[in-house]
Amino acid sequence: MRDSYSQLDQADPLAQYRALFDLPEGVIYLDGNSLGPLPKATPGRIQQVLHEEWGTQLIKAWTACNWIDLPARIGGKIARLVGAQPDEVLCADSTSVNVFKALSAALALNPKRRVILSTTDNFPTDLYMAQGLIRQLDKQHELRLVSEDEVSALLTDDVAVLMLTHVNYKTGRMHDMVALTKQAHVCGVLVLWDLAHSAGALPVDLNAAQADFAVGCGYKYLNGGPGAPAFIYVAQRWQNEFRQPLSGWLGDARPFAFDPTYEPANGVGRYMVGTPPLLSLAALECGVDMLLDADMNALRAKSLALGDLFIERVEMKCAVHGLVLATPREHVQRGSQVSYHHPEGYAIMQALIAHGVIGDFRAPDIIRFGFAPLYVSYDDVARAVDILARVLDERLWDAPQFRMRKKVT
Amino acid sequence: MRDSYSQLDQADPLAQYRALFDLPEGVIYLDGNSLGPLPKATPGRIQQVLHEEWGTQLIKAWTACNWIDLPARIGGKIARLVGAQPDEVLCADSTSVNVFKALSAALALNPKRRVILSTTDNFPTDLYMAQGLIRQLDKQHELRLVSEDEVSALLTDDVAVLMLTHVNYKTGRMHDMVALTKQAHVCGVLVLWDLAHSAGALPVDLNAAQADFAVGCGYKYLNGGPGAPAFIYVAQRWQNEFRQPLSGWLGDARPFAFDPTYEPANGVGRYMVGTPPLLSLAALECGVDMLLDADMNALRAKSLALGDLFIERVEMKCAVHGLVLATPREHVQRGSQVSYHHPEGYAIMQALIAHGVIGDFRAPDIIRFGFAPLYVSYDDVARAVDILARVLDERLWDAPQFRMRKKVT
Repeated sequence: MRDSYSQLDQADPLAQYRALFDLPEGVIYLDGNSLGPLPKATPGRIQQVLHEEWGTQLIKAWTACNWIDLPARIGGKIARLVGAQPDEVLCADSTSVNVFKALSAALALNPKRRVILSTTDNFPTDLYMAQGLIRQLDKQHELRLVSEDEVSALLTDDVAVLMLTHVNYKTGRMHDMVALTKQAHVCGVLVLWDLAHSAGALPVDLNAAQADFAVGCGYKYLNGGPGAPAFIYVAQRWQNEFRQPLSGWLGDARPFAFDPTYEPANGVGRYMVGTPPLLSLAALECGVDMLLDADMNALRAKSLALGDLFIERVEMKCAVHGLVLATPREHVQRGSQVSYHHPEGYAIMQALIAHGVIGDFRAPDIIRFGFAPLYVSYDDVARAVDILARVLDERLWDAPQFRMRKKVT
Repeated sequence: MRDSYSQLDQADPLAQYRALFDLPEGVIYLDGNSLGPLPKATPGRIQQVLHEEWGTQLIKAWTACNWIDLPARIGGKIARLVGAQPDEVLCADSTSVNVFKALSAALALNPKRRVILSTTDNFPTDLYMAQGLIRQLDKQHELRLVSEDEVSALLTDDVAVLMLTHVNYKTGRMHDMVALTKQAHVCGVLVLWDLAHSAGALPVDLNAAQADFAVGCGYKYLNGGPGAPAFIYVAQRWQNEFRQPLSGWLGDARPFAFDPTYEPANGVGRYMVGTPPLLSLAALECGVDMLLDADMNALRAKSLALGDLFIERVEMKCAVHGLVLATPREHVQRGSQVSYHHPEGYAIMQALIAHGVIGDFRAPDIIRFGFAPLYVSYDDVARAVDILARVLDERLWDAPQFRMRKKVT
């Protein structure tokens, strides 16, 4: 049985990428959708930034080493991963801050409508930023939360912007970006897509979908390192129509003129705010470069095959233990993870981690397994299910050290 | 003559710190107020974060390596440099983003007044963020810009918040924080101090001044590296009185409960937004630790002595060349830099840089020289003036390669 997985790995056209990551021995890492692992190229690049750029060039590095261009340059690379033009994407700030900018723009560009429509189980920071924005604006706006299945029926004529995460962080369910964007536009609604669990994991085509705004995360499937800067996409047609409120000096048309009155740069550049964290930004580029080199269709095919294999083997080996699949089986509705409900999910995940399989728990009862095809093998998936089966069969999770919840996580 | 400076350096109680920086040979670096140099401790710490933490612990590092605590931990350290309580300071985002949070709070906490008072020559991003906030709020607020000398006479009863940069980035002029804050409070005005050119350069006592809000920069005198995260100070008495609008998940009371409704954390923690850029944050801590080790009063004394020496020698050696001192001579009004007006300032600074003295040009006509006492020596200052004198005497600046302005800088 195990041999067949080795054969799948031998035939894997992406197999060579695994060696480009610094993965610890004895760990099966299925949590790249929380934090991608360390690319082997990253430490060398960071040493270069530290010693040859910062240490040697000092302030001159901003121009001599093109630091000033990095947010646009890496943005242009990410654009290729998400079906955007190079001048539609910028790396800056956190996903949360970018949600604030994009929602501010969307509400201003659809001024007769007052509702932000989103889903109750969207990632909380997106909802929190919307709540903060509404409190600040005038409290006449409304964040309306519905279930994922209700979205398309509730694009009513008071909705200004639909804010959706393309792939749900808990369930791994994927929305139909093209169809929903089209339907929203027919209803006069702008759309903001959060690509946190899509960018770098599966093909995304923002331009084909005619998406208005998007944001995404640098530290998950892009392998940019902990807290890597996020990105923001603004469709060309909207870029010069609004001044986003976080109008910092690097979004000014002439930041080094030091004029007391802000004049926004043309294009997506006006979505810059302050000076970007260079070390983290440089690390992000290493992760992105690796994905640019890989074939996105091969990535998607392998991701789905890994997910299918995981589901199939869990059904075969863990059927009696009450795991309830939370992820759609259908490929068109599935991102790059597989999740299960289980009332003891927290303890099960702690036990799995202790036995070398790192996934994630998400309250109240979800265990999730992310499949990043650049470095996860078929053999990893098969062994992960073996260990899961053992944890369940032998009730290894039913121990105080696994059941006691830590303050954080 | 030169010997006397060597003696000053030999008697310098801070002399040992210079060896803790990786300064390039043959360069006199007087631009630590733009970007502090590389501490020798930083690359090792970053390698540790890359290999032992990210690479080895992966997602577990957030708790196992206390990444989650870093913004508060480094904030607590910076608090000691600026006279605040440890739970009043947080490292997060950029200075610009922190200005937005602090101004939002100050306006909300002084709701009957509609004016943000600041100075025309404040650092532009502070003004730009105020302009962006006002556009978003309701356009009934006003950013009123006056000269530095007018501030204390114009604390009128429509002013909600006074936003000042403690040390002017062009002239190096320092405001009297205690007196102005006291006067503002008497007039019913809250105060936001920007410490970009103060923190780590001179003693600051926010608590003694009863300051309401402050922000500051990690990559200047704190030597945190390019684009290092900034910090924000919120006086304890205001922390729980307002929900700042950039209400991201890490500012929530229970971020890992994944509740769809934001509930702000108590304390300054609610000023967190998204996931912080860990590599840049870890580098910042190395710079801050070095300053904590140094005696701030010795730092201030040396900074002023370096400035005095620079001014005195420029008067002696460059008198005929039309340099006009832009920085107050009086110690109580001076930060840690010395600046001059000169119509050919741009070309003069380019020529100086080409001859190994790195300072900064600020439009329209300012050349500025920053004195970071941890690594700038008396001999550096004496030699810098010698080179400045030569650049002026021999008109070395009057060459096409120095007069042609680059797009950036």
